[in-house]
Order: sequence, then structure tokens, then C-alpha cells
Amino acid sequence: MSEYRKILLVVDLSEDSRIVGERAKSVAARSQAEITLLHVVEFVPVEPMGEALLPAVQVESELLERARSKLTQLAGQLGLQSSAQLVEMGSIKTEIIRASQRLKSDLIVLGSRERHGLAILLNFTEDTILHAAPCDVLAVRLH
Amino acid sequence: MSEYRKILLVVDLSEDSRIVGERAKSVAARSQAEITLLHVVEFVPVEPMGEALLPAVQVESELLERARSKLTQLAGQLGLQSSAQLVEMGSIKTEIIRASQRLKSDLIVLGSRERHGLAILLNFTEDTILHAAPCDVLAVRLH
Repeated sequence: MSEYRKILLVVDLSEDSRIVGERAKSVAARSQAEITLLHVVEFVPVEPMGEALLPAVQVESELLERARSKLTQLAGQLGLQSSAQLVEMGSIKTEIIRASQRLKSDLIVLGSRERHGLAILLNFTEDTILHAAPCDVLAVRLH
Repeated sequence: MSEYRKILLVVDLSEDSRIVGERAKSVAARSQAEITLLHVVEFVPVEPMGEALLPAVQVESELLERARSKLTQLAGQLGLQSSAQLVEMGSIKTEIIRASQRLKSDLIVLGSRERHGLAILLNFTEDTILHAAPCDVLAVRLH
């Protein structure tokens, strides 16, 4: 019977990341699967003539630095200190698929939020990942 | 640590249903979760003035009967003879959500197919389930 060996745990670093992380640990536990944590900093291009006081490169590196520090903290809370941690910058979907392919992960674990009303008309990250993922996807329900 | 207790295994009775079923069994195994198999016969209304030789009610009952028999066969192949088996008729999404609520399932396992080209413009069952599901969803990648 097939078991998951390499789990890509995608976190947005919100409060709910703990819930998603615990789920991934629970699935990983039985097959001693390897977990890699991934957070994607969505790339927001800085207008060249905007009011930004800092050069774009500096803003980017500060965003990345802050995300790395929060991810390390989360990994510690989850008891995943020794797991690999990735922080990427770019499109969430693209970076998740890319990381999954590079790591040859067999399961992607991510959070899925409830939606109501107009929100269901939007194009959701979880959906596009579900379509494009090279492997299984576990969507953890967040309320 | 939370474990899944009640798994709703959704199968379309295609060849790939075995793969999805094995995944569900694998997840269920560690927590001795209860598995309920569900197949939904999509309701195709028969035109009253159409060329159908059989009354609509008879067509429906034959479709349901055939589905029940195939589901029992699949359950046997998966070693899930003693699991509950449901065959419902109607909208796939609605029936899955309804069954999940009724059973208070904590995980829905279903197959997800790769899509290319124009197919990604369609509204997929897995997506709408991902949005509406009251619980976690494991999408098993089928190629």
C-alpha cells in the first residue's frame, strides 16, 4: 500500500498555519514522511515612481527576511525545527508547483478557507493548485 | 493530535476508483477510521416526449441498480465489504456535501484528473466540493 514519503507543507504564516501544520504532521507520522515547509511571499512590484522611500531590492529582502524568521518560529512551534524551510517570492501557485516538482513531493498540504457569497466567483489559489499539482493535495478546512 | 475518524470515499466507478480507494484505506488504516463509499449517479432527466421506450422511473431504478452492483464489486476488490455503501442520484456536488454532513465525515477522499488546454475553463466538481465541503478534502491525483 502506498504511503506518502515527501510532504510539501504550504503555510501563509497566519494563525491557522498551526492547524494545517498539525495535519501535515499527523499524515507524515505513520510513514515517517519528510516534511518541507514552504511560504511564498507574493511578489508585489514596486512602482518605479512610487512613494517608496526604500529601493525595491531592499523592500524585497526585508520581506523575505521577515518571512524566514516567522517560518522558523512556526517550525519551532510545530516541532519541525529540523525540517527544511523554503521561502520563495513570486506567484503562489507557480512557486508551490515548482517546489513540489523540485522536491518530488507526493503530497501537498495546504489550508482552504470557507467562502460565502461573491467570494466564490474568484479564482482561488487552492483550485489552481489542485489542477496543476503533480501529486495529491490535502486541503485542510479552515473556518 | 487529530486523526480522521470518518472518511467519505467518493468513487466514479471508473478504473481509477481502485487507486482512490487504496489511498483512502491507507489514510484510514492508522486511526482505524470508518470508510463510507459513495457513488453519485448524475441525474439526467428523460424528455417526456423523447424516444425512450422505458418510463423514466424504470430507467432511474436500473441505473441505480447497476451502480449499486458495481459499487459492491469495487468494495470487494478493495477489501471494504463491510463498509457502508451509498448510491445517490442527483447533482454530484450536492450529494457529496449532503452525505458528508449527514455522516459527519471529517475527510472526503476523491480523485482529481489532470487537465490541459480548454478543460481548465470548466467548473470542476472537485473545486466546488473544495469550497463547499464542511471538512478536509484529499484530492488523489489521477493521470
